[in-house]
Amino acid sequence: MSTVIGENVPRVDGQEKVTGRALYTGDLKLAGMVQGKVLRCPYAHARIRRIDARKAETLPGVVAVLTRDNLKVATPYIGAMIKDQPVIALEKARYAGDVVAAVAALDDAVAEEALKAIEVDYEELPAVMSVDDALSPTAPLIHERIERSRPPAYGRGASYIAHEHSNICHHFHYERGDVNEGFRQSDLVFEDEFVYPTAQHYPMEPTISVASYEGDSVTVWSPSQAPFATRQEISRVFGMPLSRIRVIVPHVGGGYGGSKGALTSILAVALSRHVRRPVRVAFSADENFKTICQPQIKVVIKTGVKKDGTFVARQSRVYLNAGAYVYSTPSVAEKAGYRSHGPYHIPYVLTDSYAVYTNTVPAGAFRGFGGHQAAFAYESQADIIAHRLAMDPVELRRRNLLGRGEEYAAGDTPIDCDLKGMLEELAVAIEWDKKEEPPKDPRFKRGKGIACAVKDGGGSGKSASATVRIMSDGSAVLSTGSVEIGQGVRTTMLQITAEELTLPTDRVEVAALDTHTTPFDHSTNASSATVVMGQAVQRAAQDARQQLLSAAASTLSVPVEEVQLREGRIIVKEKGWSLPEIMRLCFANVGGEVVGRGSFNQIRDENVPLGQRSPFWEVGFGGAEVEVDEWTGAIRILKYVSVTDAGKMIHPVHCRGQDEGAAMFGIGLSLFEELLYEDGKLANPNLIDYRLPRFRDLPHSFASRIREDAGGPGPYGAKGVGEGGILGVAPAVCNAVFNATGVRIRQVPLKGERVWRALGQPAVKTPVRQ
Amino acid sequence: MSTVIGENVPRVDGQEKVTGRALYTGDLKLAGMVQGKVLRCPYAHARIRRIDARKAETLPGVVAVLTRDNLKVATPYIGAMIKDQPVIALEKARYAGDVVAAVAALDDAVAEEALKAIEVDYEELPAVMSVDDALSPTAPLIHERIERSRPPAYGRGASYIAHEHSNICHHFHYERGDVNEGFRQSDLVFEDEFVYPTAQHYPMEPTISVASYEGDSVTVWSPSQAPFATRQEISRVFGMPLSRIRVIVPHVGGGYGGSKGALTSILAVALSRHVRRPVRVAFSADENFKTICQPQIKVVIKTGVKKDGTFVARQSRVYLNAGAYVYSTPSVAEKAGYRSHGPYHIPYVLTDSYAVYTNTVPAGAFRGFGGHQAAFAYESQADIIAHRLAMDPVELRRRNLLGRGEEYAAGDTPIDCDLKGMLEELAVAIEWDKKEEPPKDPRFKRGKGIACAVKDGGGSGKSASATVRIMSDGSAVLSTGSVEIGQGVRTTMLQITAEELTLPTDRVEVAALDTHTTPFDHSTNASSATVVMGQAVQRAAQDARQQLLSAAASTLSVPVEEVQLREGRIIVKEKGWSLPEIMRLCFANVGGEVVGRGSFNQIRDENVPLGQRSPFWEVGFGGAEVEVDEWTGAIRILKYVSVTDAGKMIHPVHCRGQDEGAAMFGIGLSLFEELLYEDGKLANPNLIDYRLPRFRDLPHSFASRIREDAGGPGPYGAKGVGEGGILGVAPAVCNAVFNATGVRIRQVPLKGERVWRALGQPAVKTPVRQ
Repeated sequence: MSTVIGENVPRVDGQEKVTGRALYTGDLKLAGMVQGKVLRCPYAHARIRRIDARKAETLPGVVAVLTRDNLKVATPYIGAMIKDQPVIALEKARYAGDVVAAVAALDDAVAEEALKAIEVDYEELPAVMSVDDALSPTAPLIHERIERSRPPAYGRGASYIAHEHSNICHHFHYERGDVNEGFRQSDLVFEDEFVYPTAQHYPMEPTISVASYEGDSVTVWSPSQAPFATRQEISRVFGMPLSRIRVIVPHVGGGYGGSKGALTSILAVALSRHVRRPVRVAFSADENFKTICQPQIKVVIKTGVKKDGTFVARQSRVYLNAGAYVYSTPSVAEKAGYRSHGPYHIPYVLTDSYAVYTNTVPAGAFRGFGGHQAAFAYESQADIIAHRLAMDPVELRRRNLLGRGEEYAAGDTPIDCDLKGMLEELAVAIEWDKKEEPPKDPRFKRGKGIACAVKDGGGSGKSASATVRIMSDGSAVLSTGSVEIGQGVRTTMLQITAEELTLPTDRVEVAALDTHTTPFDHSTNASSATVVMGQAVQRAAQDARQQLLSAAASTLSVPVEEVQLREGRIIVKEKGWSLPEIMRLCFANVGGEVVGRGSFNQIRDENVPLGQRSPFWEVGFGGAEVEVDEWTGAIRILKYVSVTDAGKMIHPVHCRGQDEGAAMFGIGLSLFEELLYEDGKLANPNLIDYRLPRFRDLPHSFASRIREDAGGPGPYGAKGVGEGGILGVAPAVCNAVFNATGVRIRQVPLKGERVWRALGQPAVKTPVRQ
Repeated sequence: MSTVIGENVPRVDGQEKVTGRALYTGDLKLAGMVQGKVLRCPYAHARIRRIDARKAETLPGVVAVLTRDNLKVATPYIGAMIKDQPVIALEKARYAGDVVAAVAALDDAVAEEALKAIEVDYEELPAVMSVDDALSPTAPLIHERIERSRPPAYGRGASYIAHEHSNICHHFHYERGDVNEGFRQSDLVFEDEFVYPTAQHYPMEPTISVASYEGDSVTVWSPSQAPFATRQEISRVFGMPLSRIRVIVPHVGGGYGGSKGALTSILAVALSRHVRRPVRVAFSADENFKTICQPQIKVVIKTGVKKDGTFVARQSRVYLNAGAYVYSTPSVAEKAGYRSHGPYHIPYVLTDSYAVYTNTVPAGAFRGFGGHQAAFAYESQADIIAHRLAMDPVELRRRNLLGRGEEYAAGDTPIDCDLKGMLEELAVAIEWDKKEEPPKDPRFKRGKGIACAVKDGGGSGKSASATVRIMSDGSAVLSTGSVEIGQGVRTTMLQITAEELTLPTDRVEVAALDTHTTPFDHSTNASSATVVMGQAVQRAAQDARQQLLSAAASTLSVPVEEVQLREGRIIVKEKGWSLPEIMRLCFANVGGEVVGRGSFNQIRDENVPLGQRSPFWEVGFGGAEVEVDEWTGAIRILKYVSVTDAGKMIHPVHCRGQDEGAAMFGIGLSLFEELLYEDGKLANPNLIDYRLPRFRDLPHSFASRIREDAGGPGPYGAKGVGEGGILGVAPAVCNAVFNATGVRIRQVPLKGERVWRALGQPAVKTPVRQ
């Protein structure tokens, strides 16, 4: 019936973006604005004995230099989960790239010159670059004292273990039954170790913020996925009430979880407050690489099975390299641990996951959020198990997959879709049972692999609110804090508003995001905006609709039950009024409007405790067909199929875009992307040395199959779909490589050299193919 | 008990304004912005045979020229009440100053040059400059065809009479009983004619707008008192949904009812839509004079009284010179007519008031809105009556004043304060019974006069809405559409919010006014924001408070009745939580906020029909002591006392500022201000020839006495106080001149020459005093 939900309506931001009219933070020009730049420590770990900025300060065009010596704040520490990162380094710097000073100058060139003129007296300290080194009893402590977060342990079986005087900043523990008893009951036990790389988010738009401090208020422009969290950090650091801080989000060029703008916003505010002029802090590509990354994750996974393939027990140890500061890594650690059970029925589970400080670039949230790393481990191991049991990998999974309504873990949301049906769909789509003709040239081998994974849609505790205003001409304006990071969320929210008000989509506008006027949203993350903000928007629109119906009923002197809103008209029995007509009647000739508000707060609305209760289950089933060049180790993905469940697709093209985009992210991480260190420094902080996937890396055949199982808690049964596609890529590809070559690779990305070595380093007989 | 209401808290906009940081529309600089200027007709009435803009268009730096020939709009007519004004003149121009073309150019100089290059072929038409001329049967019709508004006749006894093929654009008729029967019952009947001048609002900030049309949306910056009405006009003229139009109101340098920005906004949008660049249209001081004015009003008033001074019957004929286009003049006509009864018990009333087109500058709303012109007539006549009856003017008024709770007119709000008490207070304050020592030099005469007037707070039908958000740190942001035009309204609204949330005022911020995010407000006018928006804001704050209490109750698992909000803390029995603490509990660790909404719609909330039902009664009782120089006619106001009722003063200093400011306006209009025409053109459109009051024109003694009779419908019993002070000035001064000299002057302003002639033109014996 709906003419809006499930339709590919034009994007809210589409025309502006394709015509180049869309303005990003970097386009902003404010009168008197100066440029902020930061000085970075060249050592992985160093004590700062002295900083002398006097020479820099006297350079013509330099407006100010901020160091630990003149940074006057309520607290210098920031951090999404643990307040461990000084805005500007204090007693020491903890990685090569750590910020030790900030300059405001009339232009970039002067600012660069000023940075060079700052004298820093460093005392180099021993550094630890890997988790193994950091866990050594003799390892230097990277943080001598931190305020460790103590979130309430969530769900039955989950707890947190504190490690004092250790580089372990977070330890998540989960158990279900006695895992040793499980292993005793098993016929076979498998133990394997898998490593997933540290990588860069690399959104098109770099990290940037502009701040303008005036009087005792500040306005910040920043492409943040979490403008309300940014506001919160500014409030805390500078001791300002939230009501005096405006965070405005212009158009945003991608996010992917990289906390874009968190540090630049604080630096810009600090500088602007100091110099009382607008300040722009824009990081270069090199600096973006040195600001935040995906943590490297090592998973040691031990699984006990019956001879018939039934899973009995699983023990996982998950190690995350959190880098020098943790951002959301503690949460990623929990999720990687919690998600390492996989979508299977496993009676005995024991998981320990650790986030560990090292002297590397800070790690944090990244699309997939621990889910794809865990899936790489358990789905690679599933094929190891199947191979050993001489079972069909599809059959092994069919036997163990959770059914709809079964609990993933006690107390968590039951599985909300038909996983087994998706497995069958995947098998058909990848033509699992069809044996392909082998390539003519025997150096090329072909094989197929699959992987099945799920990811919860973030922990409970999300909170969102929205307002919907119906204008006197019947058009409407929605105010929502969900950030448009390319996923189409503002169009989706517009569709929900239009649907509830029975309006065509071109009668609804979405107001600019400004924390001073936009109602609160937790953050745009975990593929959850459609579910979380979607419900807030739906309620706001329903509140507006109900007020309209009540006003119409009172104006027309009929009971409210007799008033209906249909196709943008108020209907009472057989009579109808257009919205402008009824608004004119309700508000007489003076105009007027209806303001609806809606909010969603998972903890209060669903009466669930803070912590682990997924709002929904995001599904990432992948099937890959690959060709391996045994001479070079080069891998081509011939075909990739992603199967997921959207619950209900509000905007099918956007859903497909999200699922394909997530799969393409997975392809980059599985084949190419990896941050590398040399001598304590990031060695490839640029797009020459760090390889992103390109168009020609697209699989020859690439399909996203999205089901609508109607089990989501979002409006009309919707769920989120932004991350499912990434989950299955690495294991499906590695399983296909095994299927093609008989060689099991336990570390991605599958760069040519790594594959070539794994294949037994066959002699190169012809020049390497590019 | 309150620490906020009734306190002179710092102004929201104070620091910004006194430090020069406040940005006004004229400070706005947008990339690519061009300057808009208009060509004005030099004739009072002329047919436009042809416009040739080709030469102007080819001048270097000229971006576009808009005339009737290329103005493509949904409808070219605008107007607050009657859509009679073309954005750009069509077949003819109706006053000297009418806009016949608009130019967009790179700078002002080029734009001026382009205006000169536009060739217009005019055919001059006979013009009518006065109401008398316009009403002559042979007068040319100024508007051949207009859509006349047909508002529902309000209140018992009120009606509208249509005049086709006439220059009368609006005729309001009111009767109570048979006035001729009233005159028959009277012992004496008085008939007098009074004239009040046409004048300029002259706010410090000129008329200006900036528009930026992008895609199919437009953003307008304008110092409008009625941004939502401006949005409505743009929607109508350009056929755009309201949701695609943003009107942003920066700081505003005064309003006084002059529809500032109405015409410039439409012109700026038209130009920006045409050239697809931001366009700034700023009128010069000369142009402001030629844009809108206060209508000249002639009142012919006939009053029948008993010998003891009891008022029996009153017939008024009120003539307004509406100028070439009417803006709100029809409404001013109604109000001047309706207000001509005065605050007295009069059994028989007959009123006809007429707004009449002439070929002069368009008239419209002006502080006082017909009230001071009517009061000038009836309060001057009251003294004529008292003199004839040999009664004390105070005693005459005492005998006739309406008591608290008595109806002004059937169906209207009863008098909501103690008028008689105010008369006594005025008499004491002006030392009515004390005979002053006469000046030593007999050329100077001294006298005292009083006047008593009331003014309704605008007709019913006002509508306002607001939101109040409580942030997770317990600070709050208010969104209100009331425009800060210097009166302090945003501070008042902040106080109401703070009071309801029991917060200190520095924990509340008021968000910038932007129609895209700010809830609807009818307009900031008729001194009614405190009452109308005040109730919306109070309800929004109460809604937020109630949600907070509910959330706290559910979080703390106690009945909501047991939860209290006191001094910014949530209290349950003897335990207390600060707002940040309780917000953290309610929203767990994720942050969150409460969004409260409130609206006020007089018609629906108070169940009153559209039209005349005053939300409250504004009081303007004035007492003047003057010195008249008989040789020159110069008048000095030695003492002025204004007595009014605020119901409850939310911010006493602002109330006093409003009342004193209104009285000072009255002084300017009574002594100096008057627009003059010569040869069909405005002769004094500048501050050299048009005399505004200066500091040295302040009365030597100037007091505003504000009562708090607690009878207002606004929060805490508040009423509005922005216009009362103007009501009594002209009659009190003229009564004082009569008291001093025995000469009755029936026309203001009391310029030296006019007074000197009225005094019988005594010979000038010494040089004229400056």
